[in-house]
Amino acid sequence: MSSPVYDDKNPFAMILRGELPAYKVYEDHDTVAFMDIMPRTDGHCLVIPRNPSRNLLDAEPETLARVIATVQKVGRAAMKAFDADGLQIDQYNEAPSGQTVFHLHFHVLPRYEGVALRPHAGQMADKDLLASHAEKLRAALEQTT
Amino acid sequence: MSSPVYDDKNPFAMILRGELPAYKVYEDHDTVAFMDIMPRTDGHCLVIPRNPSRNLLDAEPETLARVIATVQKVGRAAMKAFDADGLQIDQYNEAPSGQTVFHLHFHVLPRYEGVALRPHAGQMADKDLLASHAEKLRAALEQTT
Repeated sequence: MSSPVYDDKNPFAMILRGELPAYKVYEDHDTVAFMDIMPRTDGHCLVIPRNPSRNLLDAEPETLARVIATVQKVGRAAMKAFDADGLQIDQYNEAPSGQTVFHLHFHVLPRYEGVALRPHAGQMADKDLLASHAEKLRAALEQTT
Repeated sequence: MSSPVYDDKNPFAMILRGELPAYKVYEDHDTVAFMDIMPRTDGHCLVIPRNPSRNLLDAEPETLARVIATVQKVGRAAMKAFDADGLQIDQYNEAPSGQTVFHLHFHVLPRYEGVALRPHAGQMADKDLLASHAEKLRAALEQTT
């Protein structure tokens, strides 16, 4: 394996710097969560660290600890917000695994009985739908944290 | 969502108690890693905490921090051991998401350029193949830790 570097022109770095908009649902000192704009399931969101990590392979263990704590927090809230039946966490490292944005991120995917996931990096969702899902998730997070 | 409880008769609890065998590749005070006997990809292994957690939803954040640190350690070693092109981490919570064993576990899936994953919970692998993959992964872990 080569040792690829972190490129701070990636879209998530731009979201962190406020150069791109996002449907944010949660943020703290170390992590940010926002809706995936190409959701594979209703309520699909992403959790990222603020500090620059390309993916799980180069991240500091402390960064991973903080990100996975936020994954749990957002995941629990998503179960309530979307009345989900299960929760899937996906995390991709390097392009052959499906990574398309090279800033560490965890996919938080509410799952519903009998409903398959849509394709990864598929269709852009309706903006009003994303905004309403973000609002639901924020409300659930306020109740639980 | 209901609040399902932890049942210590699950296969991973039995592995932890030594009541079932496993192709172990790594263990420390808090976590254990072993080969998935129905691998979706060559080198597919699982990382679990020793303490009882049904899944990510009920786990203590400290448990998650320790498990994700081991996921990184085993994942880095798997990239080397299997000369993988990428690494996918999957984690399922409750049956509708694909969880079949109700003890928290993270799937560590080496990915190879142009090779699709086999189905989840599919075919049992050949025992000699699993043993040789476990040996490769242990050797890579010894070099990196």
